[in-house]
Amino acid sequence: MEPMPFPRVIRTVGELQDESDHCRAQGLRVALVPTMGALHEGHLSLVREARARADVVWMSIFVNPTQFNDPNDFEAYPVNFDRDLALAGENGVDVVFAPGVEELYPQGAQTWVEVEGLSESLCGASRPGHFRGVTTVVSKLFLAARPHVAVFGAKDFQQLAVIRAMERDLGFGIEVVGAPTVREADGVAMSSRNVRLHPEARIQARGLVKALDAAERAVLGGELSRDRLISEVETILREMPLGETDYAELRDPISLALAPEFLSGPTLLALAVQFRRPEGGDEGLVRLIDNRLLDPTPTR
Amino acid sequence: MEPMPFPRVIRTVGELQDESDHCRAQGLRVALVPTMGALHEGHLSLVREARARADVVWMSIFVNPTQFNDPNDFEAYPVNFDRDLALAGENGVDVVFAPGVEELYPQGAQTWVEVEGLSESLCGASRPGHFRGVTTVVSKLFLAARPHVAVFGAKDFQQLAVIRAMERDLGFGIEVVGAPTVREADGVAMSSRNVRLHPEARIQARGLVKALDAAERAVLGGELSRDRLISEVETILREMPLGETDYAELRDPISLALAPEFLSGPTLLALAVQFRRPEGGDEGLVRLIDNRLLDPTPTR
Repeated sequence: MEPMPFPRVIRTVGELQDESDHCRAQGLRVALVPTMGALHEGHLSLVREARARADVVWMSIFVNPTQFNDPNDFEAYPVNFDRDLALAGENGVDVVFAPGVEELYPQGAQTWVEVEGLSESLCGASRPGHFRGVTTVVSKLFLAARPHVAVFGAKDFQQLAVIRAMERDLGFGIEVVGAPTVREADGVAMSSRNVRLHPEARIQARGLVKALDAAERAVLGGELSRDRLISEVETILREMPLGETDYAELRDPISLALAPEFLSGPTLLALAVQFRRPEGGDEGLVRLIDNRLLDPTPTR
Repeated sequence: MEPMPFPRVIRTVGELQDESDHCRAQGLRVALVPTMGALHEGHLSLVREARARADVVWMSIFVNPTQFNDPNDFEAYPVNFDRDLALAGENGVDVVFAPGVEELYPQGAQTWVEVEGLSESLCGASRPGHFRGVTTVVSKLFLAARPHVAVFGAKDFQQLAVIRAMERDLGFGIEVVGAPTVREADGVAMSSRNVRLHPEARIQARGLVKALDAAERAVLGGELSRDRLISEVETILREMPLGETDYAELRDPISLALAPEFLSGPTLLALAVQFRRPEGGDEGLVRLIDNRLLDPTPTR
């Protein structure tokens, strides 16, 4: 088998903007897949989604310091650029944009992009400043790449809602696409954080998808009560001794408003669980999220 | 004399983005002059500056509600679109972008662009939220027009500093140009607010430029003491019975940091004065600003 070529690596905003102008002048459609590296099958599915929607696919690899509310989490974030580059190339990424921190946050940088309401609840409540960091860096990536379409994982449902609102409010003129969550063989949503789970916690983590499955079955069986659904979900989440539930909520998929007492339309079940190590303590905490869109009114 | 053609009016972000792509594909350089209408000679000098730097000149006319901390000021802001359009046309503006409020602030809009440090002092202290409104709307205008260059008046020195920082931090790839302040025959800086001054206040308003002139003369005469310069300026400003000084400060022109005790390089003298009507009361308050770059080390 022929070795796949490595994608071209661009390090500066100016060079990427020139490349974007060049592509646009040729009538080529550009898709951007923003990542923080540590690529797994979830990211590669975003690349495939991007390929289906554009002529050229660009991936950014940038571990964004401003979205880590916990500096330990930032330090622990896995980095393997050569492996990421090879995976990107094998999967048809044309350009990898890998700027240094100073390129996206120049000396004296003090500008923030913030989506007020949507950023405040759920993960925003547990991780103060997280979404402000996300929207700020995604604005910079959007301005650097000027893509026609940008693909994000639907696993990070709140991030997707926040970025969609930002795109609408500021008028980037970019199609924001959410791609379905990719799962491990046992159903656990793929995440760069999974490898940091203690083996026991990794097994217990199946509880999240079990809870989503149970709620989906219940809704298909006619259960519409928000409180009864949440109660069933919480019972399953409590079966994970190493996991502490951060939230388990039913929300409107666009506005993230709390679901009504009885579900009447597509509703997002969103879960966040913090896993600890069996020996206890604050070392090695890993927070996982997962979600599913429940539809109490399927096509008849 | 031939009547000048009116400029083309564009009302939607999408149409302006298409026009921008079209110009860029043809290799044309686009300049944007953002205004809130109520055009005067100051704005027209920005248009001339823009013409000198680009192939096509676009002017936006949008009275941005989010930058008025005082709703009375927003209501009182003069609007005369037909006159503005004629003036724009006579001065060679090719496209006027005049969106409705809902076009730049869609239903549910909740995204803000904020420059933290630079927005807080001086006018930012007197007008909470003002610069957040400015940077948010200018981001939207930049994304809609995607110009190569944007021209702002140097009279609004803090706005210029804030927008330059925003452009640098987010990486718009737009050249931000500050054009010199244009003055009335008596030296008062042109402003859409001048017409709202009581005739007596309008005469007294000459005090601002008198104070700037005096400081400039003092610096040329070798005075480098920050405190003595400010003291001289304040004495002149006190000669305006209808004016109350909001601030009179010496600042670094880029960082807006307070000047050192003895001036050692180009330093901005920035003034803001609130004028009342002779009959007193809170009705008809008009706030004027003016500034001058003082250079204690001119070319020898």
